[in-house]
Amino acid sequence: MKKTSTHIKEKLQQVSTATIATCLFKRGLKNQFIQGVTSLGSSKNTMVGEAFTLRYIPAREDLNPIEVFKDKKHPQRVAVENCPDGSVLVIDSRNNARAASAGSILVTRLMKKGAAGIVTDGGFRDSGEIAELPFPSYHKRPSAPTNLTLHQAIDINVPIGCGDVAVFPGDFVVGDADGVMVIPVNIAEEVADECLQMTHYENFVLEKVNKGYPIIGLYPLTDEKWINEFKAWKEAGGK
Amino acid sequence: MKKTSTHIKEKLQQVSTATIATCLFKRGLKNQFIQGVTSLGSSKNTMVGEAFTLRYIPAREDLNPIEVFKDKKHPQRVAVENCPDGSVLVIDSRNNARAASAGSILVTRLMKKGAAGIVTDGGFRDSGEIAELPFPSYHKRPSAPTNLTLHQAIDINVPIGCGDVAVFPGDFVVGDADGVMVIPVNIAEEVADECLQMTHYENFVLEKVNKGYPIIGLYPLTDEKWINEFKAWKEAGGK
Amino acid sequence: MKKTSTHIKEKLQQVSTATIATCLFKRGLKNQFIQGVTSLGSSKNTMVGEAFTLRYIPAREDLNPIEVFKDKKHPQRVAVENCPDGSVLVIDSRNNARAASAGSILVTRLMKKGAAGIVTDGGFRDSGEIAELPFPSYHKRPSAPTNLTLHQAIDINVPIGCGDVAVFPGDFVVGDADGVMVIPVNIAEEVADECLQMTHYENFVLEKVNKGYPIIGLYPLTDEKWINEFKAWKEAGGK
Amino acid sequence: MKKTSTHIKEKLQQVSTATIATCLFKRGLKNQFIQGVTSLGSSKNTMVGEAFTLRYIPAREDLNPIEVFKDKKHPQRVAVENCPDGSVLVIDSRNNARAASAGSILVTRLMKKGAAGIVTDGGFRDSGEIAELPFPSYHKRPSAPTNLTLHQAIDINVPIGCGDVAVFPGDFVVGDADGVMVIPVNIAEEVADECLQMTHYENFVLEKVNKGYPIIGLYPLTDEKWINEFKAWKEAGGK
Amino acid sequence: MKKTSTHIKEKLQQVSTATIATCLFKRGLKNQFIQGVTSLGSSKNTMVGEAFTLRYIPAREDLNPIEVFKDKKHPQRVAVENCPDGSVLVIDSRNNARAASAGSILVTRLMKKGAAGIVTDGGFRDSGEIAELPFPSYHKRPSAPTNLTLHQAIDINVPIGCGDVAVFPGDFVVGDADGVMVIPVNIAEEVADECLQMTHYENFVLEKVNKGYPIIGLYPLTDEKWINEFKAWKEAGGK
Amino acid sequence: MKKTSTHIKEKLQQVSTATIATCLFKRGLKNQFIQGVTSLGSSKNTMVGEAFTLRYIPAREDLNPIEVFKDKKHPQRVAVENCPDGSVLVIDSRNNARAASAGSILVTRLMKKGAAGIVTDGGFRDSGEIAELPFPSYHKRPSAPTNLTLHQAIDINVPIGCGDVAVFPGDFVVGDADGVMVIPVNIAEEVADECLQMTHYENFVLEKVNKGYPIIGLYPLTDEKWINEFKAWKEAGGK
Repeated sequence: MKKTSTHIKEKLQQVSTATIATCLFKRGLKNQFIQGVTSLGSSKNTMVGEAFTLRYIPAREDLNPIEVFKDKKHPQRVAVENCPDGSVLVIDSRNNARAASAGSILVTRLMKKGAAGIVTDGGFRDSGEIAELPFPSYHKRPSAPTNLTLHQAIDINVPIGCGDVAVFPGDFVVGDADGVMVIPVNIAEEVADECLQMTHYENFVLEKVNKGYPIIGLYPLTDEKWINEFKAWKEAGGK
Repeated sequence: MKKTSTHIKEKLQQVSTATIATCLFKRGLKNQFIQGVTSLGSSKNTMVGEAFTLRYIPAREDLNPIEVFKDKKHPQRVAVENCPDGSVLVIDSRNNARAASAGSILVTRLMKKGAAGIVTDGGFRDSGEIAELPFPSYHKRPSAPTNLTLHQAIDINVPIGCGDVAVFPGDFVVGDADGVMVIPVNIAEEVADECLQMTHYENFVLEKVNKGYPIIGLYPLTDEKWINEFKAWKEAGGK
Repeated sequence: MKKTSTHIKEKLQQVSTATIATCLFKRGLKNQFIQGVTSLGSSKNTMVGEAFTLRYIPAREDLNPIEVFKDKKHPQRVAVENCPDGSVLVIDSRNNARAASAGSILVTRLMKKGAAGIVTDGGFRDSGEIAELPFPSYHKRPSAPTNLTLHQAIDINVPIGCGDVAVFPGDFVVGDADGVMVIPVNIAEEVADECLQMTHYENFVLEKVNKGYPIIGLYPLTDEKWINEFKAWKEAGGK
Repeated sequence: MKKTSTHIKEKLQQVSTATIATCLFKRGLKNQFIQGVTSLGSSKNTMVGEAFTLRYIPAREDLNPIEVFKDKKHPQRVAVENCPDGSVLVIDSRNNARAASAGSILVTRLMKKGAAGIVTDGGFRDSGEIAELPFPSYHKRPSAPTNLTLHQAIDINVPIGCGDVAVFPGDFVVGDADGVMVIPVNIAEEVADECLQMTHYENFVLEKVNKGYPIIGLYPLTDEKWINEFKAWKEAGGK
Repeated sequence: MKKTSTHIKEKLQQVSTATIATCLFKRGLKNQFIQGVTSLGSSKNTMVGEAFTLRYIPAREDLNPIEVFKDKKHPQRVAVENCPDGSVLVIDSRNNARAASAGSILVTRLMKKGAAGIVTDGGFRDSGEIAELPFPSYHKRPSAPTNLTLHQAIDINVPIGCGDVAVFPGDFVVGDADGVMVIPVNIAEEVADECLQMTHYENFVLEKVNKGYPIIGLYPLTDEKWINEFKAWKEAGGK
Repeated sequence: MKKTSTHIKEKLQQVSTATIATCLFKRGLKNQFIQGVTSLGSSKNTMVGEAFTLRYIPAREDLNPIEVFKDKKHPQRVAVENCPDGSVLVIDSRNNARAASAGSILVTRLMKKGAAGIVTDGGFRDSGEIAELPFPSYHKRPSAPTNLTLHQAIDINVPIGCGDVAVFPGDFVVGDADGVMVIPVNIAEEVADECLQMTHYENFVLEKVNKGYPIIGLYPLTDEKWINEFKAWKEAGGK
């Protein structure tokens, strides 16, 4: 399993969220793009990891004084410490960025522990510092207020909604400049394989378009001429 | 406990959500009004009951074909059948009314079972029929599409967010023409008592205002004259 | 064709938008409910008719002085005069109710001409008067400003978006208290037939639920006992 | 002046907000409709009065404990007591209905004092009771939380924004089932006169449309035949 | 005409969208700024071209399987291939960025064909790659899902709405760091001329302000002293 | 006072908006973060200054022709000229960025006069040029249309709302990559002192987290070991 996971990740690292979206669309999954989140940093690396989730509900004032963090069992802190190696911490902040989901200390800790990234449909504080970490992070917009202002961490690793997408623990989460896609774990391997093939084809098309060829017949591949050229291109080692 | 619950409910039945909101505001709880929901019917009765919760996440297409309802364990149906007598079913629909949270058959069943009401921060289908039931129901707006279109029922009786309010199982839920307030269970009795007193005072004020008196000194009660009159009014049986 | 259309309409008159939504969901059509519109009147009659469409774009000030209405070819007025008997005028107002889509004079004219109803994803002016007409009308909210303020009528009877739904001329449009569903013309007959059957079943279920039976096994129909009872009920003339 | 004001009001009482909107549109004023507010009651009477304004800013917690109302100078209470006879209290709630702008006691007091109505681009609490007062009131939606939760009353009778409209003290404010229009005081008389004429014409058109005539040439009045008929209709006392 | 077009474009290349907005404001056109779109790249060059339009409606699932692109007449692909040299492809995506309007292959093709830019009130996929093309592109935010998920291309080169602006084929479209302005073709030449003059004046003002002078009397130019200085500055070749 | 102000500013310069937000949260102030604004430039310097405010209401067309700027008393221009040295101009644009709050000429003038920054809950025009000024500026998004299109400057240095925060003249305004916090003037000194201490502690934590230590017991500081280490770290000159 671990080995499979590594293979899947290696493939997903080479494909884009747009390609994954098309691949899932063909399977009838049209709602796997986390809406409205954007990458904080400017890294070109693709984020790939299994989802480890954290659920927030609205904060009730009496339950969320600053002292709650002294509780060593506070779910936000526990989630950070327990997020497995290679996983992406995905936070359900109810699409609300009016208070932070987390700040630079927690995100740094997550990075140090070996997580693959962090995603919230809310916002991060210390966003300037987070943006400079060599660690993929996605949010809606910066937000200085402490999470206790509006969010109470309540559950770890249960199915959640994030940016209007269902995220189940273990789903594969992929992020690039477009944003973040969620791939159901049961089809992750076949999706990774198909996306890799699609990516080779897209590279071929882009090469041709950059040479000035029109897209009709080439994209999608319907003209005999282009079908043959693509075949030859691949045989010549194109990808 | 059951007896206490009954006493609390009898008192809450006589007070308004506005009075409860002020009472909770004084205790530092400023975010207990479920935002954006409205009553479907035109009944004048106040809805009162303990919260029994249902959590929805976004629907993934492969997990939500029409056939899922054949599963006798489907959480939406189970929630309706298990909602205790005198409780209010509160649904976390992620503020999304683009598909229904439930329809008239489930709501009728809930009524028949003895529930006290139903609240969603999404929408109901068959809203015309639901509006005519002698049963309190609150939603954002009508919505014909089946819940499977956008919602997957995932958890029963866990803490949820509903209309931007934290709702814990067992909280007291009160609804009138303004909408729905949520009272933490641990302070419900004192809140009910205080609200009843506040209501008597408000009735006194309204009586005076309707007679043409100005509000300053009367509302709030700061003038000696009005303090004495209110005392006399209460002694004369006013409430 | 005309005859078919009449038959379809008679059937659709007896079913709800919620039932239609489920029927279309089963066929993979999940986005046929016009989002956010509500009925102005309080009539209990179901609106049914073929879509006749009108498309608005944003109004450019120099092209939309009050004088444009003197042009006998102005598309808004032409659309009203040309909307066929039994059709529903569906207006693409770009989900914008900050200015009116039409007012009581045009809506009255439409009614007099024999149209079946009017739907806009904007708002109507003179909404109090329109609400009292014996004519189904659906909008987002009342809006006093003349349509020229924000809308320019540009096209008649082309495919449009209305409330985030694709509406093609000739589609069947059905409205009730929940709002408005759009049925592709090519499947309208089979949908009408299936919905009528579903409605009979739902009536059976509601009858049983009102008698106090639980929904599991009954809704959907999975228990042998209920399957037989339903069969008997239908044979006894139930519908 | 007072006399003029009375004359203007008598005329405005007979016209609709839609007619006023068209009249102002012709003068280049395209943004005088208070967006998104709706009448609480079901009265058919038109609200007419001069604007008396109240400005809210966001509530800072330390400045807005419940005790502030004990201050006899609190601007919200002072505004209610000082709103002149025949005026409409217009509140700038920053389009925010998450807490109340006012409740039934203040609205009742305003009615008793002789005000002509109340408008907020927020919400009212005790909305069920306010709806039953013989007093025009307009808001976005009901809202139970006390205004102190989110609003601090800061200024009385200054220029404000309400529902995205500039409202200057003394402007004429007219409300009906469509919502609320604001007429600059300096053109109020001519607008009232023109609207009355327009209303007569619209009544004529509606009479004809109800008899089955098409609108082209009639609405607007471009056909010789209709021009003459309208002249005759007026001479015969039509209005 | 072609020559005129070239002259207009040369002038517009030297002016800002802010200057154009003020110039159109003076002519009563207050709604020509495409709301909410932002440049993907970091190029400092101003985009200028005539509008070539593409209209999307909501995607109905049965009409938008992945196979539709095999149709060589698919309007999205045809629009890209037919967009004339020097034109800007402007897409009406109904302000909806939840699925892509286009991706890097189509945008690259458009660039190769000699188009002047692309604008959508939705989002692009492959946004990282598009941002690096030497080609002006404007959207709301990145969006990985294929356009078929939510958009069906339906019309080419008809009047559309884009970001709440009316866009007619042939209008001049100008984009810079602020966003995108649309200039009606019939006044494009005079607007270009006037904007160039305004730009010279603004450059003069900025020069003075950078030297520490106050703006009153200088901006706008009402002081005799500044009027004379500006005259001298222009005579000395300032612009 | 002036001296105090300088001391406060020196301290606030060294702390983040996130730290200030937590410090204010502890004092019960949960709503001091200006929602939805972002820095235009990429400067790493923290903006600090006292609030000098400008209030906009919606623009009525007859009161806002381009000529109004010729009035040397126009509040927008006067506000810029009168904004004191070291102050931040904070503009209440009613959260509306559909027209500009100001452009590069005014912002440059403000910088030249010695202001500390500018904040609007609307948008700036000439945003590309403003972004390159060595001057902190915060807005929602770029906006080319002149402010007269939608905004009328009406009041200088009164209490306002900005991004849903109450801003009183003289409040301390602090901006960094997360956005902008507002500190009530009466607690500014103690907040600055406390934030400086909090920052030292956060630096200590980050140093430890970067060395690989877990956060529990360290953040917040509850473990004896870490309490002692922190004490030693400070004694050794850590900050």
